[in-house]
This record gives sequence, C-alpha cells and structure tokens, in this order.
Amino acid sequence: MAPKALPTARVSPKGAKSLRRGNPWLYRTELAEPPATDARGAVVAVVDAQGNPIGQAFYAQRSPLALRLLTRRPHAEEPVDEAFLRRRLEAALARRAPLKHRDGLRLVHGEADLLPGLFVDRYGAGLSLQTLSEGMDARKELVAKMLVELTGATHVVCRDDASGRDFEGLKREVTLLHGAGEARFTYHEGENRFEVDLLGDMKTGAFLDQVDNHLRAGELARGEALDLFSYHGGFALALSRTCDTVLAVEQDAKAAERARENAARNGRSHVTVETGNAFDVLRRFADSGRRFDTVVLDPPGLAKRREGLATALRAYHELNLRALKCLKPEGLLVTCSCSGKLTREAFEEMVISAAEDARRPVQILERRGAGLDHPVLAGLPETEYLKALYVRAL
Amino acid sequence: MAPKALPTARVSPKGAKSLRRGNPWLYRTELAEPPATDARGAVVAVVDAQGNPIGQAFYAQRSPLALRLLTRRPHAEEPVDEAFLRRRLEAALARRAPLKHRDGLRLVHGEADLLPGLFVDRYGAGLSLQTLSEGMDARKELVAKMLVELTGATHVVCRDDASGRDFEGLKREVTLLHGAGEARFTYHEGENRFEVDLLGDMKTGAFLDQVDNHLRAGELARGEALDLFSYHGGFALALSRTCDTVLAVEQDAKAAERARENAARNGRSHVTVETGNAFDVLRRFADSGRRFDTVVLDPPGLAKRREGLATALRAYHELNLRALKCLKPEGLLVTCSCSGKLTREAFEEMVISAAEDARRPVQILERRGAGLDHPVLAGLPETEYLKALYVRAL
Repeated sequence: MAPKALPTARVSPKGAKSLRRGNPWLYRTELAEPPATDARGAVVAVVDAQGNPIGQAFYAQRSPLALRLLTRRPHAEEPVDEAFLRRRLEAALARRAPLKHRDGLRLVHGEADLLPGLFVDRYGAGLSLQTLSEGMDARKELVAKMLVELTGATHVVCRDDASGRDFEGLKREVTLLHGAGEARFTYHEGENRFEVDLLGDMKTGAFLDQVDNHLRAGELARGEALDLFSYHGGFALALSRTCDTVLAVEQDAKAAERARENAARNGRSHVTVETGNAFDVLRRFADSGRRFDTVVLDPPGLAKRREGLATALRAYHELNLRALKCLKPEGLLVTCSCSGKLTREAFEEMVISAAEDARRPVQILERRGAGLDHPVLAGLPETEYLKALYVRAL
Repeated sequence: MAPKALPTARVSPKGAKSLRRGNPWLYRTELAEPPATDARGAVVAVVDAQGNPIGQAFYAQRSPLALRLLTRRPHAEEPVDEAFLRRRLEAALARRAPLKHRDGLRLVHGEADLLPGLFVDRYGAGLSLQTLSEGMDARKELVAKMLVELTGATHVVCRDDASGRDFEGLKREVTLLHGAGEARFTYHEGENRFEVDLLGDMKTGAFLDQVDNHLRAGELARGEALDLFSYHGGFALALSRTCDTVLAVEQDAKAAERARENAARNGRSHVTVETGNAFDVLRRFADSGRRFDTVVLDPPGLAKRREGLATALRAYHELNLRALKCLKPEGLLVTCSCSGKLTREAFEEMVISAAEDARRPVQILERRGAGLDHPVLAGLPETEYLKALYVRAL
C-alpha cells in the first residue's frame, strides 16, 4: 500500500505548529507544497518549511482538508500499510471491550480512533460503514474485508450518502461491500429490541450516539412522557420502561411506522406514536393545558451551517421554552442538540434562557454527550457535536 | 415564624430584573432600601422601585448577599412559616427518590432545592447539616427537628465550620443538634462500606458529590491504578473492584489512615495507601519510568479565589501533564476539579493543553459533574463547582 519512498507534502509554519500540537487536520491553505502524486488518498510524508519530518498523512486531491495526519512516526519506523490499518482497527475494537454486552454500537469513530474519516457501526451481525476522507474512501474495500475478519460480520453496508461527502469532493453512494441480499438486523438498547434496515434507514441505521442517553432518560423518567422527534423510538421505548404512558411524535411517516413496529415488537402498548410536527404538537398542548411529567427533545441538527446559527438558536429556544411550559411541577426535561456548530456553552445558555422565560426555577441535573463508543479527540472540537442536558423544572 | 406584616426590602431596578429572571441572590449594592428589622435572617417582602411585589426573601444583616429569594408569591398567598419550610424539605427528599438505594447522599442542596444556604448530607442514620445563610443559620434547630421527623435520623451534626461562613458574617462552629455521644456512621458507595466521623472528618464527613464519579471510574478502570489526593479512599476502593493493584496517595496522615481502615474493612489487600504529596509522587514516577493503566486526580480546590486562578491553573496543568505522562498506552485518566472559580471551559482547555504538551492523542470519553443529589440551579452558576473529565491517552 505504501510505496518505498513516499511523496512529500511541505506545510506552512502555522500548519506545522498545529499538526505538532495534535490537531490531525491540515487545510489546503496551510499546504506550502503539495505532494507529487495523483493517487486518490495517497499516504504522504509531511515535513515543515525546513524539511523536518512531522509524520505521515492521507493526502486528498480535492478536499479543503488536504492532509489528515495518521502518525507522527516516519515511514521507516512505522509504514502505513495493511498491517498498520489492521492494528488501528484492532485497537479501536479493543477500546470497546467495556461495551461488549452491546450488539449495537460504534466500533470506529474516525479521528478520535486515529482512523481519520472512517466510521463503523455494528448492528448485530451487520456493519454500517461511512468514509468521510479520500484516504479512507480509497481503502473501503480493504477496510471492509479486515472488519469482516475481525468481527465475523455477515454484511458490510457502505453508507456513503452523508452530506459531509460533498465537502470532501466525494460522490454519495450506498453499496454493499460484503454479504448479499437485504441488510436488516436487530440490535438492543438495554432490554429493548430494534430492527434496522442498513441499506434504507436514516444515518447508519439508528442513532447509536444516543443509546446511553436513551437508557439514562429511561432511568430518570416517570409518569406521563412526551418524546419529540422520536425517529424509530429509541427514547420512547426506553421511557416506556418507567413511564405510565409515552406519546412519541415523529414527522417522518416511515420512521413513525418503524417506531410503532418497535413498540409492538417490545410489547409496549402504552406507547402511542403520532405522525406530526413537534412545534405544532407543543403549541397544541400549551393551548389545551396538557402537561407531562417527562419531556424529551431530540431534534435533528437545526444549525447545519454557522450562518444559520442565530435562526437555529431561536428554534431551539422556542422548542425548549414550550417543552418547559408543558412540564408538571418537578417534571424532567431531557433536551438534546446534535448541531456541531452549536457549542456546548451556547446550548446551555439557550436552555437557561428558556428556563428564565418559563419563569420557573430549573435544576440542571446532568450534562451528557455521546456514549463511550463516540469519543471526542482532544484538540479537535470538530469531533464533538452531541449535547444532552437533563433538567428538572420545579 | 413570619409576622403578620412583613418588613419590606426595596431593590434597585437592576436587582429587580435579576430576581425576576430567576437569580435568587441580591447583593447589598442592589438594595435600595433595607427592611426595618434587626432580627437575624428575617423573612421580608421584596418590592421593586415602584413598590411592585417581587416575592419573599431571607434578609441578612451582615452578609454581602443581602437577600435570598424564597418564593415569588406574596405572604398572603404563601406565608414563609414552618409549614413552608417543611414542604420545601419534603420536596427535596422526594427528589432523591431515584437514589433511595443509597445510604450516603445529599438530601438538601441549598439554592438548587429552593432552600437557600441549607445543605444536608445523610450517612446512614446520621445527618450532617451546614448553613451558609443567616436565614438558615437562625433556623437550624427548627430544620434539624423537622429533618429528624422526616428521616428518622438518630443524630444531626451541625458542621458550620466551613470557610464560606466568614463571607456571610457567621461564626464557625461544630455542634450536635440532635442525638448524643459520638457521631460515627457507616455508609456505602456501591458495594464498598465507609466509616465517617461526622464531628471530626473533613467537609461534612465525606465527598458525597463524587460518589457517582467514584463508581463510574471503577467501571472504566483496569490494570494498575494510581489514585492521587485519595482522602478516605472513595476512588481507591471503587477502582479496586476492577483493578489489579491500586496505589492511593494522600498527604493528610489522618485521612490516609482512614483510607487504610476502609480498604481493610472491605478486604482490599491490593490497595496500598501512601502518605505523601501528589506532585512529589508524580515526579518520582516520571523519573523512574513507572507507568499506570489508570490515574485519578481529585485535588482539593486549588483556585479558592479568583485572584489565584492563574497560579491554580498552572498547578492543575502540571498535575494533569504529569499524570498523562504516567499513563501506559490506552490508559485512563479521571481528572477532577472542585474549584468553583475555575469554569468548566477553562478546566477543559487546561486538560487539552496538558494533552498537547504530553504529545499524545487523547480521547475525551465523558464529562461529568456532581451527582443527581447535587443539582445546579439554572441561572446561578455559583451553585456549580465540580467537574470531572474522563480521558484516554492513546
């Protein structure tokens, strides 16, 4: 995979400093001299302005992210070959050892697992793979083969249909890298069983980053619960373990139907799934005076681009204010944001401001993010996006 | 307790706005007209510049925090009497229902439980009570009596020896409000049993705010563990469930002895307690090349005053850098700060900077704070202080 002498990329002093501080990304603006290669996702040697070695990286021909550092060691010490990739995959799997009781989890989380641009989710015997770097895109057949060997998976679905691919100059596609026929699998969140269609569902099948929040919400919830933006029922089914009734609201008819199926599959007749818009539903309850003991807000990313942040914040504020107003005394609100552009601090300020507008004392009980299988790389805030705040309105 | 007509405190427009936004604290600088009372911790009616009612508050004769709002409702609707206090105590206890399996927990957490300046910890049949407001200080016998009725406690120790009392103009004292003789109790953290001397130990006996972090660290830890600033062994004993060996380091000889006793009490012969200074111990291991799979850093508040923040940050950075250097590959660091003056963001920046200086990729796995029994009041950041970051050094 790696040639005898690697092409060399020379980076600016600013870029060299950033790479040496641990940020693995280098934008093309900091590339002083591109490597002499036209191979897709080539491994290159990275040097500073003086020619001092920095490490080895994936080079992308088209992405604004020209380099993604793979190792600080030189080719002679640690060649980036098949064995290198396999060691990195094995290390990522080994880090999930504390989660070995789970059959639905993320096995590889990109840069934070030192596998830049590679994301792999497991659903039972099925794997869902995403590449968001040219380097990994060029190696996905190889990666799929190794993953089958390491995990015994029967199917590897390539879900390269995320919008992030456009930024990288990669075409969107959904393919089956291993296995044949359909790719329907079941997995569990706690005791609840879910079915996913890895070729057809949203994201990579489910929102595995939220599994721990689903379970934690289920532990703390009680009484009558309202779950907004329910998707296939991850929160709703977790809530149904401890709550008397759960009303799940989901705008997408197909996802709502999946939520109904998952509720039936788990024998939760006290879960009702309504196909509808969360804003409208909250307005209706505000007017009718209906109140809940528990409300979950898990909207899709409302702030996709930085420019839309102010608008998104207003939408988040509106949602959270209405949700707080729909809570009975001592009620629990679990409020989430998966917008990477919305910082943890701005998200919390928004929730606190909504609490002030609701004119009720509000306790912040817990702050959480994605689960252990979705770590953040220190020094690369772009690898963090999910925020969950657990609050009690007195 | 409340007279027929309450004395009235008039506040500035700025103060009125802040109280109405939900911040229950009003500094004396925002007091336009003090109430005509010389009673200690009197309940007063609070009005704005125009005389419009804002609510009822504790008034302190001496504290810079002149008012602590108790309710937004007027005396005629909701008198602040014994029944009011009892309802607030009952509500605080009811909020701990999800923690009913625990015999060591905080029952009342001050402003966040709408009982300003009152903190109550339970250790088995013993309660440890702290007051940090003149209003609660003046009522502590009454509160102790109610708590005995509500919880069946055999002892209520008043641990009014915290430095925060000075700020309030309250004298420091340790007294027994209920019960007789010694006040030694046992309580559990998970399966581990601890003994506390409520009259003699630090803080209110133990660091109950860290119990969830002790248990979570125990779940994630493995191999050879190092626990720095060990106190009576909360982290060390939790780690000992999953780790092969635990070295606990504590500078205070009495606390170190207590940690040894607690280790022996739980049959953990693979826990070694060393009486020593954490900085020195880390330096020694850095020099000798000794490495650990798990390191816990739980220093006492290094930043007590804002002026000392820069110095404290250097100390935190030094500790975290040395701890990261003492970690084997894939090692876990659980790093904490209980300095209220150090924001969550500044704390994380410090840890990330230490990771950069350690020249190792570091995953942020989890961010946690104090447990559910120590909620934060939204809009009053002063009620938050504890931060814990779980990171893995690759």
